[in-house]
Amino acid sequence: MTCFKANIGHKIFFENAQAIIPSDTAAAPKECAGAVGAFVDRPLNDDMFGEDTFEKAECKMLSVAIDTAIKNAGLKRSQIDVLFSGDLLNQIISASFAARDFDIPFLGLYSACSTMSEAMLLGAAMVNAGYANRAVAATGSHFASAERQYRYPLEQGTTRPPQSQWTVTGAGGCVIASAGKGVRITCGTMGRVVDFGVTDVNNMGAAMAPACADTLLSHFRDTGTSPEDYDLILSGDLGALGSRILKDLTWEKGYDISANHVDCGEIIYKVIEDEFQGGSGAGCSAVVFNSYILSKLRSGQFRKVLFAATGALLSTVSSGQGESIPCISHAVVLEA
Amino acid sequence: MTCFKANIGHKIFFENAQAIIPSDTAAAPKECAGAVGAFVDRPLNDDMFGEDTFEKAECKMLSVAIDTAIKNAGLKRSQIDVLFSGDLLNQIISASFAARDFDIPFLGLYSACSTMSEAMLLGAAMVNAGYANRAVAATGSHFASAERQYRYPLEQGTTRPPQSQWTVTGAGGCVIASAGKGVRITCGTMGRVVDFGVTDVNNMGAAMAPACADTLLSHFRDTGTSPEDYDLILSGDLGALGSRILKDLTWEKGYDISANHVDCGEIIYKVIEDEFQGGSGAGCSAVVFNSYILSKLRSGQFRKVLFAATGALLSTVSSGQGESIPCISHAVVLEA
Repeated sequence: MTCFKANIGHKIFFENAQAIIPSDTAAAPKECAGAVGAFVDRPLNDDMFGEDTFEKAECKMLSVAIDTAIKNAGLKRSQIDVLFSGDLLNQIISASFAARDFDIPFLGLYSACSTMSEAMLLGAAMVNAGYANRAVAATGSHFASAERQYRYPLEQGTTRPPQSQWTVTGAGGCVIASAGKGVRITCGTMGRVVDFGVTDVNNMGAAMAPACADTLLSHFRDTGTSPEDYDLILSGDLGALGSRILKDLTWEKGYDISANHVDCGEIIYKVIEDEFQGGSGAGCSAVVFNSYILSKLRSGQFRKVLFAATGALLSTVSSGQGESIPCISHAVVLEA
Repeated sequence: MTCFKANIGHKIFFENAQAIIPSDTAAAPKECAGAVGAFVDRPLNDDMFGEDTFEKAECKMLSVAIDTAIKNAGLKRSQIDVLFSGDLLNQIISASFAARDFDIPFLGLYSACSTMSEAMLLGAAMVNAGYANRAVAATGSHFASAERQYRYPLEQGTTRPPQSQWTVTGAGGCVIASAGKGVRITCGTMGRVVDFGVTDVNNMGAAMAPACADTLLSHFRDTGTSPEDYDLILSGDLGALGSRILKDLTWEKGYDISANHVDCGEIIYKVIEDEFQGGSGAGCSAVVFNSYILSKLRSGQFRKVLFAATGALLSTVSSGQGESIPCISHAVVLEA
């Protein structure tokens, strides 16, 4: 076993053959209507999932995604050494209450919509270092619980501005193991908090794009790679507008990602209707990555993917006190 | 370098000599009036710290603790590879906005009042594995921002029940390095979510004690140690009542910790006045550990300390929807 040790910049190389063996995703009907829907393991009939509150439905989706990912790996819960999870709700109650159902050590994370890649990065680090044989990384979100918490009551029927996105109702998780066949996590790049001064809480794409650009540029520089080295550069939930900004920002620094960049938020919905710029939320990249992208990696259609989920670290209180929106993006490299 | 690799249970041994070189704490006048106050690096004149909102004051305390810990180590910010931080506020805005001031990779955590030990565990893991040369672990809390968010507006003057605790206004952080003299982190035990069905949001000690007991018992079992092996077993913020419950629960399982157990919440305040059971909040264990306890470890008064911060993973929404309070505790072993 060799652990990479040096002045690491922002990146970590994972030199063991730890693999993502199985994954599982659950998503609501709207999320399953698009191109990604066919790859979702558990399409739901409605967004309540048999629960009486949105928050409980969100928690149940996450719990089911964790449980089924473990089962899909042919493992028992007792064989999982640690669960990395978080979500968008205050005090990450979806993750905490889901973790209550499992008799597994739990390390709670908050990184807004970049939680999926933060969890994968830390899971791969713990497994690669030999501190865990198997880790689960999982997250999710729910449109209605996010709207209630961050914006307006749904009953109010507030008009959404054209630069807004639609929080994905879905959850996804994967098992990261020290042995086994599967897609490998070979590198991780930890993001810094970047704030370009955007204050429009309905324009998350513009706020998050600079953080994503910062992480991608750090990654290319630290690893000596360029966009052409990846079959796909997958951002989390910048949406259509944010993706354009990301391409501009990286292009200005000499990296043209336009040929192989795709954004999870841009591709999850079938039609641009009231979701405008596309999907967002921790569940957006969790669902798209763990279903559609992972299946393409497994089939060999993609050989190497750079996955950089993106998160906006605001709260209603910070915005109410006049603060701008600090953002972050963590990246992991997946190889078939 | 040898990384421990096996079926790990809940524990991780850190075999490299990574050390906590420096630390820094900031705390408000009430917190500095007690026995711990003399060890606080930066006693504040008031709880606003020159800011115009409680949340900004909380963020500034945390930012100062991080910055000063780095300076105390004789380091520049650019020499820190990763910052692990989180706090109690929705979307951990104190940590996220503090991280915005630093050009350092940031991994956001949420583990309520057990964030200090979660951050130290992950920081030590990253440093021990060679993924970082130096990591910072830090957290904080503020009485007024916590009251506003979790309970009642201060202006309402709500009477506090006798089983309640007082959220500490303070922050603390430490640098964990792969080389250097100092107190060493030699082991970590990751906690599971434990919920004994307590629903009284004013009785956090009773809710958290079972989680702390679960982690301590896992730790003793997994490491083959017993309470006598530690000069001090330090829980996070159980308060007076929670500490009694913890001693009972561990005693029932054959481990008598009564001779060397101390709770941060029990010792931080000088007089039991309106804080009743003692201190709580992420800042409670952050301040007590990084000032008082660490100085005793440095001076050799303590040789080996088991530090288990404790967190209640509820939110106002979860309690409003009738849920009980899931809790967690992560433990690290410090050796002089």
